[in-house]
Amino acid sequence: MDARQYAALPDPFPMWRGGALHGARIAYETWGTLNAARDNALLLFTGLSPPAHAASSAQDPGPGWWEGMVGPKLAIDSERFFVICVNSLGSCFGSTGPASIDPATERPYRLSFPDLSIEDIARAGFETARSLGVTRLDTVMGPSLGGMVVLAYAALFPGAARRLVCISGTAAAAAFAIALRSIQREIIVCDPAWAAGAYPPERPPVIGQRLARKLGTVTYRSAAEWQQRFGREPIRADMQQRVPFASEFAVQGYLESLAQRFVTVFDANCYLYISRAMDRFDLALHGDPVALFRRANLEQALVIGVQTDLLFSVSEQQAVAGLLAGAGVATRFAPLSCIEGHDAFLVDLATFGAEIGAFLRQG
Amino acid sequence: MDARQYAALPDPFPMWRGGALHGARIAYETWGTLNAARDNALLLFTGLSPPAHAASSAQDPGPGWWEGMVGPKLAIDSERFFVICVNSLGSCFGSTGPASIDPATERPYRLSFPDLSIEDIARAGFETARSLGVTRLDTVMGPSLGGMVVLAYAALFPGAARRLVCISGTAAAAAFAIALRSIQREIIVCDPAWAAGAYPPERPPVIGQRLARKLGTVTYRSAAEWQQRFGREPIRADMQQRVPFASEFAVQGYLESLAQRFVTVFDANCYLYISRAMDRFDLALHGDPVALFRRANLEQALVIGVQTDLLFSVSEQQAVAGLLAGAGVATRFAPLSCIEGHDAFLVDLATFGAEIGAFLRQG
Repeated sequence: MDARQYAALPDPFPMWRGGALHGARIAYETWGTLNAARDNALLLFTGLSPPAHAASSAQDPGPGWWEGMVGPKLAIDSERFFVICVNSLGSCFGSTGPASIDPATERPYRLSFPDLSIEDIARAGFETARSLGVTRLDTVMGPSLGGMVVLAYAALFPGAARRLVCISGTAAAAAFAIALRSIQREIIVCDPAWAAGAYPPERPPVIGQRLARKLGTVTYRSAAEWQQRFGREPIRADMQQRVPFASEFAVQGYLESLAQRFVTVFDANCYLYISRAMDRFDLALHGDPVALFRRANLEQALVIGVQTDLLFSVSEQQAVAGLLAGAGVATRFAPLSCIEGHDAFLVDLATFGAEIGAFLRQG
Repeated sequence: MDARQYAALPDPFPMWRGGALHGARIAYETWGTLNAARDNALLLFTGLSPPAHAASSAQDPGPGWWEGMVGPKLAIDSERFFVICVNSLGSCFGSTGPASIDPATERPYRLSFPDLSIEDIARAGFETARSLGVTRLDTVMGPSLGGMVVLAYAALFPGAARRLVCISGTAAAAAFAIALRSIQREIIVCDPAWAAGAYPPERPPVIGQRLARKLGTVTYRSAAEWQQRFGREPIRADMQQRVPFASEFAVQGYLESLAQRFVTVFDANCYLYISRAMDRFDLALHGDPVALFRRANLEQALVIGVQTDLLFSVSEQQAVAGLLAGAGVATRFAPLSCIEGHDAFLVDLATFGAEIGAFLRQG
């Protein structure tokens, strides 16, 4: 069962750092109905790795990455909003990316895919909404990577959204996050199986990808939460890796099982492109952020950060809220004390749902 | 110039998890003079990677890893104390470890080196002090790995130290630190050049070792400090790595240069052995920690932690201090607010020196 629909992007689709795509498309899913005034659309961008399937639906009853958050009478209420969730440009769940076929060569793009930027992901979402007849969103929203994308969206498309929700995002990647993502990318490209990006689809660089994903996953939570969940619990015998000096503790078994699942669904080159785009994002490249937000003509904004977030520190979210408020946008800044770190938005649905629901209801 | 001296360990030297070493030795350096009563010795254990050269001396004027902390009239005052710093058993700066020649085969131990434990490092330090005629230390001290070793020392050798200083250590490795160290080890063993530990000394697994060290280094500081030092500063052109998707930011150039230096001095197998020993350490394996500390017959203890330490959280140090105090040891717990994270003891010498100096002077 597949609830995905596809929006054809303008051809050519110019990329922000140069080059263009031809015949590119965006996979998206929707919940709810666009009203006659076409003013109840909520565009949702994802984090680095999820698909457009944010929540179950009649077309696809499988649980989505934000199951329990999007749906009838939920925080993102599909009885009120026409919710559109897009798979990011550059990803590999139906949208055009490095693993897609280049129509010019009829072979996968791989490293011939043009440089990808957060701005391109924002533009692809904008075009998707426009293809659905929406010119002004009620709300543009995104967590993590998506929290960068919504800021680019506001900067690039003045007036295209009435409200903005930035969750565990940042206006510019911080040094610590850059360092950790750079190491992840280097782990992948150092895997001989990566083969300069030309690995056959059936023989991806699983060793590098697994290691990179484990490192990513460790940093998506907090030290306190890892301790609370796993402590020094020994690894289950059937989870023990057969490599020398492998961990003897359950935390590593958990990371390994998540990583093994990840390598079967996510393309390594897509990961490299999106990861680098995150490092490069800096809203200030578009000009003074306060002036950008003033021109964006937003009415309201909600900025959520988590105190235990290692990668997108709560001070970065505070800075985003400050820029929005400085631009005259009615802004609520919610620094949450969840223990789950960067991934809290995926886990602590009660706390996040209360914040998001209250914000969306007030408008 | 070399200030190292060598202590022969008892032959056989039994290892805590089984096996024994023959003809093993410990490299150490000393500062100051042992007094007639032989009661002014301070035994210093190191972190994971430093040698015994804690500070410059007439024999070796090069700066040590704790230069400015150990010496005449410094916090660890060599006019008062006979300071002994040991290179850990299992390391590769003169002490016996996996890179040493096994006298039984006349070839390097490599993976035939027996399992290494924190307890073995403690015992090797104890035997080194004993070889110098010291039966009761004034103080046993260590940061990081050394902060684990001093706790094992107290547990294994009751009465062998009058005072204990545990800096950014822990009584049991935490899940987050275990996860990150396990990933570092896996990065190394996944480098084909590691060759199941049998790499020739002139062709070590530099790719894996470099990546592991970069990851380690990132986590030894705090996100706030990386941001303060590097922010989004671009990498210098001559530092740019010639690998696809390499970082374009200065923070990565810094990590890379440190990592390149590290792989020229540290043996990969030694790194794997010591890293695993850190994961495995759990003081409670020796019995109830409060009972252990009571039996240890310590008079005073100083436990220092750093609020921004990601790997050895300040709550772990607080727990150590609580156990010592619970055992009736006069304990000072100093939670410091340094920004430099786990490595603060190497950087913020003013703050650490003040704490350590005040503690040592009072006795």
